[in-house]
Amino acid sequence: MTIHRPTEGIGKDVADWWQTEIIDMAPGEIRYRGYPIEELIGNLSFSEMIWLMVRGELPSHDQGLLLDAALMSAVDHGPQAPSIAIARMAATCGVGLNNAMASAVNVLGDVHGGAGEQAVAIYQEIAHLMDSENVSLKNATEEVLDAYIEENGKYIPGFGHRFHPIDPRAPALLGLVRKYAKGIEISGRYADIAESIEQVMEQRKGKKIPMNIDGATAIIYAELGMPAELARGLFCLSRSVGILAHAWEQTTQGGRNKGPIPRNLLWTYTGKKQRSYQHLD
Amino acid sequence: MTIHRPTEGIGKDVADWWQTEIIDMAPGEIRYRGYPIEELIGNLSFSEMIWLMVRGELPSHDQGLLLDAALMSAVDHGPQAPSIAIARMAATCGVGLNNAMASAVNVLGDVHGGAGEQAVAIYQEIAHLMDSENVSLKNATEEVLDAYIEENGKYIPGFGHRFHPIDPRAPALLGLVRKYAKGIEISGRYADIAESIEQVMEQRKGKKIPMNIDGATAIIYAELGMPAELARGLFCLSRSVGILAHAWEQTTQGGRNKGPIPRNLLWTYTGKKQRSYQHLD
Amino acid sequence: MTIHRPTEGIGKDVADWWQTEIIDMAPGEIRYRGYPIEELIGNLSFSEMIWLMVRGELPSHDQGLLLDAALMSAVDHGPQAPSIAIARMAATCGVGLNNAMASAVNVLGDVHGGAGEQAVAIYQEIAHLMDSENVSLKNATEEVLDAYIEENGKYIPGFGHRFHPIDPRAPALLGLVRKYAKGIEISGRYADIAESIEQVMEQRKGKKIPMNIDGATAIIYAELGMPAELARGLFCLSRSVGILAHAWEQTTQGGRNKGPIPRNLLWTYTGKKQRSYQHLD
Amino acid sequence: MTIHRPTEGIGKDVADWWQTEIIDMAPGEIRYRGYPIEELIGNLSFSEMIWLMVRGELPSHDQGLLLDAALMSAVDHGPQAPSIAIARMAATCGVGLNNAMASAVNVLGDVHGGAGEQAVAIYQEIAHLMDSENVSLKNATEEVLDAYIEENGKYIPGFGHRFHPIDPRAPALLGLVRKYAKGIEISGRYADIAESIEQVMEQRKGKKIPMNIDGATAIIYAELGMPAELARGLFCLSRSVGILAHAWEQTTQGGRNKGPIPRNLLWTYTGKKQRSYQHLD
Repeated sequence: MTIHRPTEGIGKDVADWWQTEIIDMAPGEIRYRGYPIEELIGNLSFSEMIWLMVRGELPSHDQGLLLDAALMSAVDHGPQAPSIAIARMAATCGVGLNNAMASAVNVLGDVHGGAGEQAVAIYQEIAHLMDSENVSLKNATEEVLDAYIEENGKYIPGFGHRFHPIDPRAPALLGLVRKYAKGIEISGRYADIAESIEQVMEQRKGKKIPMNIDGATAIIYAELGMPAELARGLFCLSRSVGILAHAWEQTTQGGRNKGPIPRNLLWTYTGKKQRSYQHLD
Repeated sequence: MTIHRPTEGIGKDVADWWQTEIIDMAPGEIRYRGYPIEELIGNLSFSEMIWLMVRGELPSHDQGLLLDAALMSAVDHGPQAPSIAIARMAATCGVGLNNAMASAVNVLGDVHGGAGEQAVAIYQEIAHLMDSENVSLKNATEEVLDAYIEENGKYIPGFGHRFHPIDPRAPALLGLVRKYAKGIEISGRYADIAESIEQVMEQRKGKKIPMNIDGATAIIYAELGMPAELARGLFCLSRSVGILAHAWEQTTQGGRNKGPIPRNLLWTYTGKKQRSYQHLD
Repeated sequence: MTIHRPTEGIGKDVADWWQTEIIDMAPGEIRYRGYPIEELIGNLSFSEMIWLMVRGELPSHDQGLLLDAALMSAVDHGPQAPSIAIARMAATCGVGLNNAMASAVNVLGDVHGGAGEQAVAIYQEIAHLMDSENVSLKNATEEVLDAYIEENGKYIPGFGHRFHPIDPRAPALLGLVRKYAKGIEISGRYADIAESIEQVMEQRKGKKIPMNIDGATAIIYAELGMPAELARGLFCLSRSVGILAHAWEQTTQGGRNKGPIPRNLLWTYTGKKQRSYQHLD
Repeated sequence: MTIHRPTEGIGKDVADWWQTEIIDMAPGEIRYRGYPIEELIGNLSFSEMIWLMVRGELPSHDQGLLLDAALMSAVDHGPQAPSIAIARMAATCGVGLNNAMASAVNVLGDVHGGAGEQAVAIYQEIAHLMDSENVSLKNATEEVLDAYIEENGKYIPGFGHRFHPIDPRAPALLGLVRKYAKGIEISGRYADIAESIEQVMEQRKGKKIPMNIDGATAIIYAELGMPAELARGLFCLSRSVGILAHAWEQTTQGGRNKGPIPRNLLWTYTGKKQRSYQHLD
């Protein structure tokens, strides 16, 4: 079978403006990364499709399951998170679910959604240091943490939680990684690295600063070979689920133009005293 | 075990401002819809978690698989779709992946992302008419289509495609629905309704206007009992995958401030002739 | 001087894909609506430029001033409005000011930002009824209100306020309209219409439901001949100022990942009791 | 007159959660930065209100005019800019003008909207070096440019243009700055700094790399004492006008689900050859 590109003879220069390896189409035909969509339907899970789309190849069974676990475990942390609160507020403003989701996903920035990405970067840097300079796990951990703290301050992304003494998601995810770490494909190395960070921090601070959800999903993303930046994108997919669920629940609850605090409470004004406008010539 | 609500005695009125049935938390504890997250990790797939979050109960095995198929089949339709183009452009503008995803998901509005929602509504209306007034499938289809066309024009959402003579995703999804339609839970009834629409339209127009991806996923969403409006939210989750994949690919390709067409082509100016500003007193 | 279109001879069909009457460019040359930008700089105010961009012609001096007043008076209504709250929350999430502004402007939907648009539509409908069927102001007002209330419920957009007994912006803006209503260009007719609505509502309810900021700016937008839908766009420009100011203030205050309510207050969980996951085969 | 804060006695802790110096309200009363809104209406221009909101004080007459010029001159650069293209595409997708504006403003990131901010930072750094270490203008310029180039590469934000040999907006804005630079309030110093950058670059490259719109508005923002980061926010306000104008024009033109290039052109697929799915156990 030959796919006749609809662009042939029309304006190759213009079609070249956008290039992609993700999708190819012809009338009646859609291929994702080379595979006809009709062969994937019924065979590939949603998480496996996510992998295929961002990586270009099919995942192994175990890779698919670990990605699945990382995605399903981070969907929500309640309406006190700005993203979830924004989704609920937006749903009372007379916009569509797509708009509510957009306003919310948009704030998953460096501070709100970036801890996982940053943790992946730290893990990968430790691994890189071990490989490139033959440093021990403990020493590499110390060195990378020292450099991170000097530049960014004392909080290590992925460890510690302002609310949970122990984040219940972390041990469950770590257990899964250990279960599937059977060899080269999923090595378990990044679980070791994350635990080494916990140990170094405990030695230094005299108390445990346990891994949180971001630190745990970062282990999975690192094990799966995801670039750090892409890990944030995957977190956005995951949190979009909670965002949708809360926007939808708020829609069914009703409420119009509902702000962040009860109407009688307002805010605290700390500015200039009352003053009168006087025109200056 | 008793969960002590952190709000007790502090300010019940304020905590009451946001009410949710989705998530409950206490230090060290996170429950989605009542289930502790650590019991779900490793047991629930991403799609099953999506179901739990928006519906409140666990799906059956077959319900989970059908939702999975609807989500994985609609992830992308290439950079000519405004949402995908926007994701790629945004990725060249110096914003994060979360921002690129937000600008793109935001445009999945009535025209770009709403066909599935509208098809679900049509299917449900036909079913409702059959049940409430004991009308035959064919007659209910005729009546609902007539009313829809009178109000909205001749295009029926979910049927026909400007590019694909046959959308290859539709028959594959329909086959899955037929496979899993074993009884009450997944009845197959909405597959019958969609096919009835195809038949009525073919009789009227003298040619087949085959079901497209929106019409096919709408069968699944209707079979699964999803409200029409929520179907759009689920489509947003699905398309977010393609949006992420294209934003990420564009990021790795580089390109800065890349607009919709090559720079030497500009646009066509159709406005006022050149004129000079003259100050009017 | 001849402008050589850079597209000539390259691919007219593609350049034709986007057509605009707003801007024309050639190397070294930029014209807005036909006027060279260098002639406008120093002569046109920001508000006059807004008029030129959306309307295609220069405003008169008085039209410019009234548009200016509508824009400057609606910039902010405090952090209890969802849009302002979202801007402030976003500013704590590690995203840019552009992103914070986007998440916030996005929620100025039918409920949060649409009252002005809806009021313009009501005013225009009353005027149209007077002109087309020679109905008196009072009768046209009654008729349009009756139809509106039957379809949308008892609240008339632009009138009444849940917080202010009298919105201090409304009389000030109304005074300006009266001041500039000198003849055909700014007729004062829509001020009459708005006051007629107040009178009819007072007669019906036995108490005054005074015009609010949306009702007052709608008078201006209607006097200036703005289509109702565009009035919302202009409101978005106006409120973007408050959105920026609050996002910027929050940025200078610091705060990280700051949600809508103090962290110890959480929300009220109203869902399913604690339950345990059991795998179903 | 005493303003009774509605929060008194209700829950000071909660009201304290959001603190602002921008706006204070009581029933019937709204004060921006201490000034009652009804005294500002009819007296303050839109640009002067923008200044008051972000700076906390009223601008002088000349400061207001210069801010006005910076805002009105950068409203649009045509549909080839990603922000404008996104606004137009969004307008064909069935979302509101507020949503189209949000998706577009959102991409005014470091690359697309950040040049002005970066130029302000460079100008301020040169001024700071002159003041703190008593360095000459020429030497300070050389030193700051060297450091910038070493870190960021050879392109200096605010200078040079890929389309315009001379950006017609730059000389017009520079002329205005020179006109209003009468003393301490508007010193003209940042115009000298920008011209010094032009001179140093010309000496080094042997050809002129003239100031563009971002370099020229950056002079104004620096003269007006705006922090660099805020300059981007102000640019977002300015470009929002072009974004609205194009979204609105596209709305009136119609068009549904209109992507970035004509439908028959598609894109170029550069990925994996056609391949068939095979299930791996």
